[in-house]
Amino acid sequence: MRIKCTISYDGHLFFGYQVQPGKRTVQDELEKVLKTLHKTKERIPVVASGRTDSGVHAIGQTIHFDSPLLIPEEKWPYALNALLPDDIVVNKAEMVDEQFHARFSVKKKEYRYLIDRSRHPDVFKRFYAYHVPYQLDFEKMKETSQYLVGTYDFTSFCTAKTEVQDKVRTVYELDWSETADGLQMRIVGSGFLYNMVRIITGTILEVGTGAISPKEIEKIIQAKNRDAAGRTAPAHGLYLWNVIYDN
Amino acid sequence: MRIKCTISYDGHLFFGYQVQPGKRTVQDELEKVLKTLHKTKERIPVVASGRTDSGVHAIGQTIHFDSPLLIPEEKWPYALNALLPDDIVVNKAEMVDEQFHARFSVKKKEYRYLIDRSRHPDVFKRFYAYHVPYQLDFEKMKETSQYLVGTYDFTSFCTAKTEVQDKVRTVYELDWSETADGLQMRIVGSGFLYNMVRIITGTILEVGTGAISPKEIEKIIQAKNRDAAGRTAPAHGLYLWNVIYDN
Repeated sequence: MRIKCTISYDGHLFFGYQVQPGKRTVQDELEKVLKTLHKTKERIPVVASGRTDSGVHAIGQTIHFDSPLLIPEEKWPYALNALLPDDIVVNKAEMVDEQFHARFSVKKKEYRYLIDRSRHPDVFKRFYAYHVPYQLDFEKMKETSQYLVGTYDFTSFCTAKTEVQDKVRTVYELDWSETADGLQMRIVGSGFLYNMVRIITGTILEVGTGAISPKEIEKIIQAKNRDAAGRTAPAHGLYLWNVIYDN
Repeated sequence: MRIKCTISYDGHLFFGYQVQPGKRTVQDELEKVLKTLHKTKERIPVVASGRTDSGVHAIGQTIHFDSPLLIPEEKWPYALNALLPDDIVVNKAEMVDEQFHARFSVKKKEYRYLIDRSRHPDVFKRFYAYHVPYQLDFEKMKETSQYLVGTYDFTSFCTAKTEVQDKVRTVYELDWSETADGLQMRIVGSGFLYNMVRIITGTILEVGTGAISPKEIEKIIQAKNRDAAGRTAPAHGLYLWNVIYDN
């Protein structure tokens, strides 16, 4: 039986999603719990929609695994949550057919980036939003977004050390909104390169401060050079919000 | 010069507000920072509006201390925040006259209690709201609030081990509202006994489950016996929200 789960996790005490020897990772915690639940010593591999980096949060990460256990759909989250550490929560489980693959079936992903605009940092958001107290031209930041929507080679918005060859991605939606005490960037794309959302956020923040003009974004894209873009915004403001599949 | 500060803190890694030997407390962190800032080995006492228990949060705790330093009002938060651990933030500082006393000048205090109503716990609220997934009769809970507004002997809503003699307090306002994913109780009073807000919350939650009827609250007050009331709701949902002084 293939089980698809929607999970959330607080990234701040994890070295990212993917298993790394000697480090606490989300995948490792999930696989440990599945071993316990299945009373086996063999690894039950968990496949996610993709990795998230150290410190990055998830509201709606998707995973799948195969299990012979006859647990009804609605009981799976309770069974897993009872064993998981309290910074990972399974919100939903569905039985899916073997054609479904958490990574290969992905159609779109939505990330959000949260910014705390309080004068002094909000103590309850120190791990959950990036504190940016200085002046920002929000209209210019919103204007900038349009230049990033579309299908482009996003080399300028990707960490240089990446091994991925094809850096063409499609950004379907990119919008900014004001929240109670801050700002939120929402981005939907076909997939994202290493650090792409954080570099986009950092670059748009530099438009906000006036260091970069909105129109310059076109040139930054054309440069196909990481050095052309702005800084990488920190991990703790970033959330994998939703993973979209065909139905 | 007497300085009044409004501070917030995340209670989850503190053994409460008040200094206790060998424990990490908010007062201890504040006094350590003032020593450093004043380049002195003598203790600079910090007076708060009152203690908060282990695990309880503050959005608007008020403190005062006396200092000979000539730091302008608006610079005090920056000076203190630069030295404080990141789970305490000074949001505002004001120079006040020596008549002002953070504890004795208090007129009213507002606490709030946050409840997470998600089916599975919200991973980002695990330290910041009490997870109550079971069914609650919210109308009955709201109805209950009226019986607690007024001036009463709140012995039934106070931890039995307290040393305070006079247990008469006035509750000015008590209301419940729905938030995005949960419930919020807001209570304003002349002052609160040990665990009083948490016992009120726990008791109203038992009205929600049907274990207690709203009208029984009057009898519980009259009993003047801790055993008459409901359970003590956990600390991590509670916030000292605001301390009100004259003007």
